Amino acid sequence: MLGLMQEWPLLCHKLLDHAAAQHGAREIVSRSVEGPVVRTTYADMRRRALKLASRLEADGFGAGDRIATLAWNTARHLEAWYGIMGIGAVYHTLNPRLFPDQIAWIMNHAEDKAVFVDLTFVPLLEKIAGSVKSLRRVVVLTDSEHMPETPLPGAVSYEEWLAEGSYDFRWRSFDENTAAGMCYTSGTTGDPKGVLYSHRSNVLHAVIAAMPDAMGLSARDVVMPVVPMFHANAWGLGQACPMVGATLVMPGPKLDGASIYELLDTERVTFTAAVPTVWLMLLRHLEETGGKLPHLRKVVIGGSACPRSMIARFQDDYGVEVVHAWGMTEMSPLGSLCTLKPEYAARAGDARLDVLQTQGYAPFGVEMKITDDENNAHPWDGRTFGRLKVRGPAVARAYYGGAGAEQFDAEEWFDTGDVAHIDPNGYMQITDRAKDVIKSGGEWISTIELENMAVGHPDVAEAAVIGARHSKWGERPLLVVVRKPDRDPSKQDVLAFLDGKIAKWWMPDDVVFVTDIPHTATGKIQKSVLRKQFRDYRLPTD
Amino acid sequence: MLGLMQEWPLLCHKLLDHAAAQHGAREIVSRSVEGPVVRTTYADMRRRALKLASRLEADGFGAGDRIATLAWNTARHLEAWYGIMGIGAVYHTLNPRLFPDQIAWIMNHAEDKAVFVDLTFVPLLEKIAGSVKSLRRVVVLTDSEHMPETPLPGAVSYEEWLAEGSYDFRWRSFDENTAAGMCYTSGTTGDPKGVLYSHRSNVLHAVIAAMPDAMGLSARDVVMPVVPMFHANAWGLGQACPMVGATLVMPGPKLDGASIYELLDTERVTFTAAVPTVWLMLLRHLEETGGKLPHLRKVVIGGSACPRSMIARFQDDYGVEVVHAWGMTEMSPLGSLCTLKPEYAARAGDARLDVLQTQGYAPFGVEMKITDDENNAHPWDGRTFGRLKVRGPAVARAYYGGAGAEQFDAEEWFDTGDVAHIDPNGYMQITDRAKDVIKSGGEWISTIELENMAVGHPDVAEAAVIGARHSKWGERPLLVVVRKPDRDPSKQDVLAFLDGKIAKWWMPDDVVFVTDIPHTATGKIQKSVLRKQFRDYRLPTD
Repeated sequence: MLGLMQEWPLLCHKLLDHAAAQHGAREIVSRSVEGPVVRTTYADMRRRALKLASRLEADGFGAGDRIATLAWNTARHLEAWYGIMGIGAVYHTLNPRLFPDQIAWIMNHAEDKAVFVDLTFVPLLEKIAGSVKSLRRVVVLTDSEHMPETPLPGAVSYEEWLAEGSYDFRWRSFDENTAAGMCYTSGTTGDPKGVLYSHRSNVLHAVIAAMPDAMGLSARDVVMPVVPMFHANAWGLGQACPMVGATLVMPGPKLDGASIYELLDTERVTFTAAVPTVWLMLLRHLEETGGKLPHLRKVVIGGSACPRSMIARFQDDYGVEVVHAWGMTEMSPLGSLCTLKPEYAARAGDARLDVLQTQGYAPFGVEMKITDDENNAHPWDGRTFGRLKVRGPAVARAYYGGAGAEQFDAEEWFDTGDVAHIDPNGYMQITDRAKDVIKSGGEWISTIELENMAVGHPDVAEAAVIGARHSKWGERPLLVVVRKPDRDPSKQDVLAFLDGKIAKWWMPDDVVFVTDIPHTATGKIQKSVLRKQFRDYRLPTD
Repeated sequence: MLGLMQEWPLLCHKLLDHAAAQHGAREIVSRSVEGPVVRTTYADMRRRALKLASRLEADGFGAGDRIATLAWNTARHLEAWYGIMGIGAVYHTLNPRLFPDQIAWIMNHAEDKAVFVDLTFVPLLEKIAGSVKSLRRVVVLTDSEHMPETPLPGAVSYEEWLAEGSYDFRWRSFDENTAAGMCYTSGTTGDPKGVLYSHRSNVLHAVIAAMPDAMGLSARDVVMPVVPMFHANAWGLGQACPMVGATLVMPGPKLDGASIYELLDTERVTFTAAVPTVWLMLLRHLEETGGKLPHLRKVVIGGSACPRSMIARFQDDYGVEVVHAWGMTEMSPLGSLCTLKPEYAARAGDARLDVLQTQGYAPFGVEMKITDDENNAHPWDGRTFGRLKVRGPAVARAYYGGAGAEQFDAEEWFDTGDVAHIDPNGYMQITDRAKDVIKSGGEWISTIELENMAVGHPDVAEAAVIGARHSKWGERPLLVVVRKPDRDPSKQDVLAFLDGKIAKWWMPDDVVFVTDIPHTATGKIQKSVLRKQFRDYRLPTD
């Protein structure tokens, strides 16, 4: 027997409709690419998004079309998302930090028909547009005054193009499982893989993000998403903020410490989110200037592991709560957030930091387990680590085009490729990537933990650990080190530094010194390249 | 084009699975019907709910069967809900405050096959069970020791019956639109009408309820739902609390001021919810004993309008935040909650109370409009009142069996039967019931506002306003008054008291004094009876 409740599909434009109806005068403040800080409201954004939707249809775009964006966080970018979704088309965020060839590959794979591009990225797009066969319209996110000369196909300034649209438009209606957005992951190996979000997954993810023990977003918050919209949906803030009616502050192209601080201060931002690198720059700026953060209440830090010292500084020096989070593009992206359950709420000092440096626990809507290679579940004992697998309504069930099918099993568990342990209270900590973890005689050794230890040595600039072949153990750890300038630590110095800090059987079998460790375009260590480089390395212990 | 996200149906038992996995040791504390305060955990509740599900199937119950509950708020009652829902059956909460004949009528209409009944209500059930043709199993929510002698069909004590179940059970799987729960509304006229909740609507409602600007529920909260589970799902707390991992404190059968205070104090309750009557008893108890509320953070008050003075006392005398809420059984039930948007957040004193005594604004997931009788939308100006209509994923689209179809229009707007105005910031205030509002020459007069004014007169015990026929205006207000004992106000006294407080054209055309005003079983004024009584009343002005 079915219930007798309304069919009210979870559609993204309802988030903006709600914001316009209930929080219509609330502001979206943007640092524009042209320079000035500009202001709009949810009511105006909705009107313009409707107009944009009508304009897209006038251009012949419609349901299912992929419309790319290559843009910073601004109100224009966000209203473009809503306009695109409102006709059943798919916004496709491109990461400008990738190599131009990768971007072109991704656009061709997605068959993007149009692109909204910021002035900043016009030169980049000019390099690749010719090789994107599907592309027939380029909208430059600026006005006629700032519009550059460009040979891009169908190029027009956003404001001129939008002016030809009509406010008199109604959102198209469709199933809540209709595709809404698209984002490609940039792995360290292989081709990028596309994740295709649905309206339902975006709305449910917004709900998961906003809950009190997740981000805890309120209409009284002033939220600055420093994390880019091209980085896994700005962690859902573009949907969650209109849903709760929070003020949005969009930092545009300037992500340096001084520019971020200026907006935090003048706009009285209460909530912000970004990767650790951004906060390093901010903390350095605060240190140099003596700036304070009297308005800021909470900062969500994710994308890579947040250093313990950063949590302590925000908390102790600036009175700001840090929520350490973990997620993936494939998860929309939130997977876990480190807020305190009552079991931990009373902790202080180091004991509190011990909890806060974990990636936290999975909210309702994310199921989590850790397993061995044969899919047997590991206990949640805070020590045993295994492959981290997840399930939920905002988790991908496949990649666009069918790549990477081996990451999804028959019960829809998605293998994250991360390795983690989970404590008895559900707090998860990433210890490695599955393809990097070293399997020594059947036992797993975390390369990340070893690297974190090694970079603690005062003479070490960067460290990477890979598994080197060993005839008895299968693999043993090899520590690859870049020395600090004018320092000359020996193998014995480095190993002696690790002694006593790690289990004896985790001790690297050798240390090699190099001048450079290879990185991806987004700054991750390319261990696959290192492994290739040291494929024939003969360990002294073997 | 569809998205590529997981099919992860929104099913109620996933709420309990999540609580068991992430908050397994969190307690559910109950004042048992037998007397003592008893404790269990989410992990244990899940195990017992699975066992209960297996036991129901062993009894031959299955998908779609309506299984009634006639019970107080206890852990047993809640685990019964989850066990029932977990086989695709439907929990059906019966309101023991209705007349026995009404309960029997409802059980027959729903064709309940079994009932879980508290010891308290065994005598009540014995009166009616014989007339409920579908009933074949009565489970008394107690153990063998406390099991009474009873002629009820298939009667057995809960613990004995449950012991025959198996923990080794897996939740049945089904569509998220499957019926999960049922609750009949008790209107002031006509037969009760059944609302049939789905798994999807229950889960989405839990999400709406828990959000920061709604109830704002956290794993660190200790939540006492004083509002009964038979009163519109205990306002969603039975779903929202496991979802966020909040501790639950279930007050069982004792709802007097002293008993409620005892649990608030000893269990360090941080959050509670009930109708104003309960809080009147608590405040009286606190006044008599000098008790304080150091742990309580927030109280949600709904079910009927919360007096301004009550909000002020909680806030000023006890430091407790009041969230005034409005809803209906047909809305699962939440429709609006009065938390403060930034436009109002800085208000203090009377200006703050002016906002807090409204029923607040609709969260994401509830659409709201006010219209005239021809469905033309009224402006949100804080003055113009009209029929309040709502839409959303947790709003009914029909009643069970098809009654009341006229309340739902083609666009699925549900006519609440309430009359309200909405201010420019979205804050809604109920001014009347649509069937009670007086239409005087095309203009609407709120009977509730007139009644609230009239009971302010020191000699008036109770007042009701109805429309009396008028040849020129159609209807004009007639004020029906019960005098206080030993007081003898005249018509002129009462009208003089109103003069200056209301618009001139709202002034009642006459006042009649009666010894008694008729009420329903749940304490509402039966204006339909009054209207019948004064059907032929000749106004002196006509």
